[in-house]
Parts: sequence; C-alpha cells; structure tokens
Amino acid sequence: MEYREVNPTREYLARLETGNDWRSEIEALAREEDVEAGWFNAMGAVQEAEIWFYDQNEQTYRSVTFDEPLEVAACVGNVAKLDDDIFAHTHAVLSRRDGETLAGHLDSATVFAGEVHLRAFDETLERTPHERTGLDLWLNE
Amino acid sequence: MEYREVNPTREYLARLETGNDWRSEIEALAREEDVEAGWFNAMGAVQEAEIWFYDQNEQTYRSVTFDEPLEVAACVGNVAKLDDDIFAHTHAVLSRRDGETLAGHLDSATVFAGEVHLRAFDETLERTPHERTGLDLWLNE
Amino acid sequence: MEYREVNPTREYLARLETGNDWRSEIEALAREEDVEAGWFNAMGAVQEAEIWFYDQNEQTYRSVTFDEPLEVAACVGNVAKLDDDIFAHTHAVLSRRDGETLAGHLDSATVFAGEVHLRAFDETLERTPHERTGLDLWLNE
Repeated sequence: MEYREVNPTREYLARLETGNDWRSEIEALAREEDVEAGWFNAMGAVQEAEIWFYDQNEQTYRSVTFDEPLEVAACVGNVAKLDDDIFAHTHAVLSRRDGETLAGHLDSATVFAGEVHLRAFDETLERTPHERTGLDLWLNE
Repeated sequence: MEYREVNPTREYLARLETGNDWRSEIEALAREEDVEAGWFNAMGAVQEAEIWFYDQNEQTYRSVTFDEPLEVAACVGNVAKLDDDIFAHTHAVLSRRDGETLAGHLDSATVFAGEVHLRAFDETLERTPHERTGLDLWLNE
Repeated sequence: MEYREVNPTREYLARLETGNDWRSEIEALAREEDVEAGWFNAMGAVQEAEIWFYDQNEQTYRSVTFDEPLEVAACVGNVAKLDDDIFAHTHAVLSRRDGETLAGHLDSATVFAGEVHLRAFDETLERTPHERTGLDLWLNE
C-alpha cells in the first residue's frame, strides 16, 4: 500500500446543471477552482448513463449504456491530474424505479439533478501508467 | 453548475437507535446540533425500507417498500432547510442475503444498526422549487 | 441515537496494493498511523470478494463468495478498536461487467486497484457487544 497524508484546503457544495454531463460538471468545478487533488461524494438522478467495466485480463474498458432515467444512489470519486488535464475518476451506483441497481465506473451521464460535496487538498496527485493493472493510478511512483 | 465554497464547523459520529426511523434519526441529530447545512455518509442495516424513485417525466415520486432485513451497503446524503424545517436528503444502497442490491432515495427505514458521519457547514442551505425538474433543490437562486 | 462531536486530526489518500486484501490494507494504514477512530470512502476493483450478510433473527453472519472480477462502485467504512485491535468496518457495492450489482458487509477481497480517503479523529472509538442486535457497536456505553 502506498499512502500520503494530505492537507485539506477548501471544500465545495455544487448543484449540477440539468442536461449537462455529470462527470464534466465535476471536472469544470475542479478546473475553475484549481483543484488538482480532491475527493468527492455525490447523489441525484440522471437521464441516461454510460458505465464502464474494466476487463482485468484484457486490460481494456468495456462500455454499457443505460438509456433510461436512473437515480444516483451513491457516487464516489476523486480528482487528479491525467495527461496534463483534470480527471474526475467517478464510480456510481444507479437504480431503476423498482429499486434494481446498476453500478460501475461512470464515464458519462446526463444530469437530471446532482448534489456534490468536493474536498480539495493542497497536493499534487497525478495519474501515471501502472504496469500490473494497465490502469492510470496515483501514488504510483 | 452552481457551487459555493463552504466552511466546515463541526463533525459528528452517530450510532442510530435500533427500532427508530433511519432518516428521522439523522434529522434529530441535525436539529439538536443546529446543523442547517451538512453532508453525511452512513452504513449499517435496516429491518425494512421504503425507497422512492422520482419519475422524471411525471415529476412525482413513486414508492417501493421492501419488508425484509437489508444491509445498508452505502448511504450518502445532505442536510438542508426545506419549508422552515430540517430535511436530510438521503440516498441508500441496500442488499439482501445473497448480495442482491436495491437502491434509491430513502424515505424511511427501520434501523437495525446504523453508523453515521455528519459534517456540518456554517452556511445556509435552503431547498426551493426548481422548475425544470419539479424537485426542491439548493443553490437554486 | 447516540452521538459525539469528533475532532479531525489528519487525513490520508491511499492506493491499495494489487493482490493484497482490501480490508487488511486499510487496517494496515490505520495501524501504521495510529488511527483508532476514522471514517473512510473508497473505490476501485477487486479480483474476488467475500461479502457477509447479518441474519438479524439468528444474529449470525452468513457469507457469500463471488469468485470473479468486480468493480468497487462504492465503499464506506469506519475504523475503531475491537478486542484491542484495529477493525475497519467495511461495506461495499460491487458490480459485474453488465452493471449487475452485489453489495453488503465486505469481509475480504483481493485488491485489483483501490483508492481510499481516510479521515482520522482524535478520539477513542471502541466496539463492545450490543445486546439487542448481537453486534459489536461503538458509542454503546
């Protein structure tokens, strides 16, 4: 395990805009406030969503699209630098009207309503290629 | 996107009382400590639960009741003012004994055991009607 | 409800090591940094997982093993003392490649990749037997 003590700086509450992209909204907040390392929690609902599943053997992402209204029952993620840009690594748990649940890595989703808490750290957190998994990970020096 | 930098004041750990209502317990904590804006995370188990799904077209909530013991695998929510009272907007991911998962907006649930972390902010966070979604949302001025 | 205001001390970001046990990694971080009370959020993926469901009537845990790669869509937990050792009470929401979701109390899981945010409190948080549920709970004096 690699870990680092981090120093919190600022924190934010955000309401995501109906019709915009869920992950892009969080990245826009991070860019506007110069957050290069942060942790977030969110909840709400989306109009449709594209979830990715990482194939651990093939080391590639596979996409599944759910073209239907879904609640965002839980959303956990973090902000770091990737290829000189800001990337919000976003996982989400979504649900249908009967409570049936879908979850995974959230690539994109159209916001119906979204409530976010973002906590920023005064650190550099940078994703670089991690050989064993094929993923871009931080604290990977 | 609308957002606001918030100033944390106090934070709390709570153990919810067996037999009481999950959401009411969180609201009672907020009222007792004068928390009018906060973010929480929780986990535990419930004896039964009523989950709501928001119909985005009809703009009404539909209810589903699960009358069975369930784990609370994840619970994310926030505290704000709504109609001059405290409202804990609560989403939850619940699971059955075989791991099958149910999720959504948690209206009510009978606590079996509950562990909560609440972070309070020195802000006014007030829910008002949001025309486009029909929901009561904060940062909606 | 029992609750306590808590004082945050330090916080950490951790990258869990591929091949190691998910929960043991979090407990190792807590031990190394003398964290006896904390709250964490995590996300990532595992190679397999053992989930427990607590039978509220029989007051015993039942185990289900999923021997397959799974995303960790959300993970919520807390650190406390139990029997003079550190215990990370860990709940998780896992998902399959089609988005199908499994969730519950995470006993063990082999890390594929894991990202954790741990917030430490300057408190004593100790689990003791709670008669009504048969669980070991904190703030149970």
